[in-house]
Amino acid sequence: MPSYLPIIRQIQREGCEFISATLIAQELNLEPIQVRKDLSITGIRGRPKKGYPVNELVSAVEHFLGWSMTRNAIVVGAGNMGSALMGYQEFQLHGLRLIAAFDIDPHKIGKPIHGVAVLAVDMMESRIRGFGVKTAILTVPSSEAQGIAATLISAGIEGIWNFTNVKLKVPDTVSVQNEDLSSGYAMLCVMMQGRE
Amino acid sequence: MPSYLPIIRQIQREGCEFISATLIAQELNLEPIQVRKDLSITGIRGRPKKGYPVNELVSAVEHFLGWSMTRNAIVVGAGNMGSALMGYQEFQLHGLRLIAAFDIDPHKIGKPIHGVAVLAVDMMESRIRGFGVKTAILTVPSSEAQGIAATLISAGIEGIWNFTNVKLKVPDTVSVQNEDLSSGYAMLCVMMQGRE
Repeated sequence: MPSYLPIIRQIQREGCEFISATLIAQELNLEPIQVRKDLSITGIRGRPKKGYPVNELVSAVEHFLGWSMTRNAIVVGAGNMGSALMGYQEFQLHGLRLIAAFDIDPHKIGKPIHGVAVLAVDMMESRIRGFGVKTAILTVPSSEAQGIAATLISAGIEGIWNFTNVKLKVPDTVSVQNEDLSSGYAMLCVMMQGRE
Repeated sequence: MPSYLPIIRQIQREGCEFISATLIAQELNLEPIQVRKDLSITGIRGRPKKGYPVNELVSAVEHFLGWSMTRNAIVVGAGNMGSALMGYQEFQLHGLRLIAAFDIDPHKIGKPIHGVAVLAVDMMESRIRGFGVKTAILTVPSSEAQGIAATLISAGIEGIWNFTNVKLKVPDTVSVQNEDLSSGYAMLCVMMQGRE
């Protein structure tokens, strides 16, 4: 489902009113029947010979993803990547609200980044409990990642968006999405080498 | 192949000397026979009952990915994400060298970011040709992405690491690796919602 959204949004930006399951399937190298089945979960129905109304489809998928509600999250690690994510405008479109960042560097603590407060990592556990926040974005050095993840989870975090290259060990009740830039770069290298 | 590297590196950091195909397969939900087949492409052979020597395996995979040589690249768009990538230390481990960044903002041009020169986007084509660089990292606003990609390709770029949410239209001779943060976040939302 998440992979459908960029395609549908692009069609929306291009000003099209309808999009067919066949077109989505082509773009993603899937079978049209699979696309129809997946999209039917959101409750939307396509129109014969026209396809899905694009605006309604975007809303339906976003609702399915929970993006029509606000999700609070914290950022752990206010380095280059953490700062970039705090300034990433598009998150607002997805209902993602970064309510605080945590760091150990005394020079960073107390100075908001892109409007997000940067707090001492010592305060992290109590603030997670206080805010009742369930989602954390992890952008700390690899050596710290597993230890910080354990602290986050014991404080009540249920979903970690992991920008470190560490494969975190977490209980079954915790969701982890890995965003490993090295893997992305490796994919590009393999593709480019395959052509040489 | 790229997905093996984070696992193997983690085992390396943990100080293990050998890693078995079975362990790698378990971590990635693959069949051990597939892992053995894939790794054999790099020329490495496992030892009976011990597995692969970890240090040699890392070197073999990195060599396969071309990370043992330096690859020059440019960054287009010196915003939050572009700046974060210029400061991303780990790229040096992968032989990735960012030789220049390009932006349209006169306040940014001429001020290096994390040691990388920021040049006017008008100079991009001539510099790509001059440097003979083949790889570009694209972190411009979505509305500019397709136009900039066309310019990059006509100047000789053969691989684009695309951090925008635009599905770029490129000739078959050009490789594109999409790094769409919204899709990553969507995956996390789906996982977390599935548990609720």
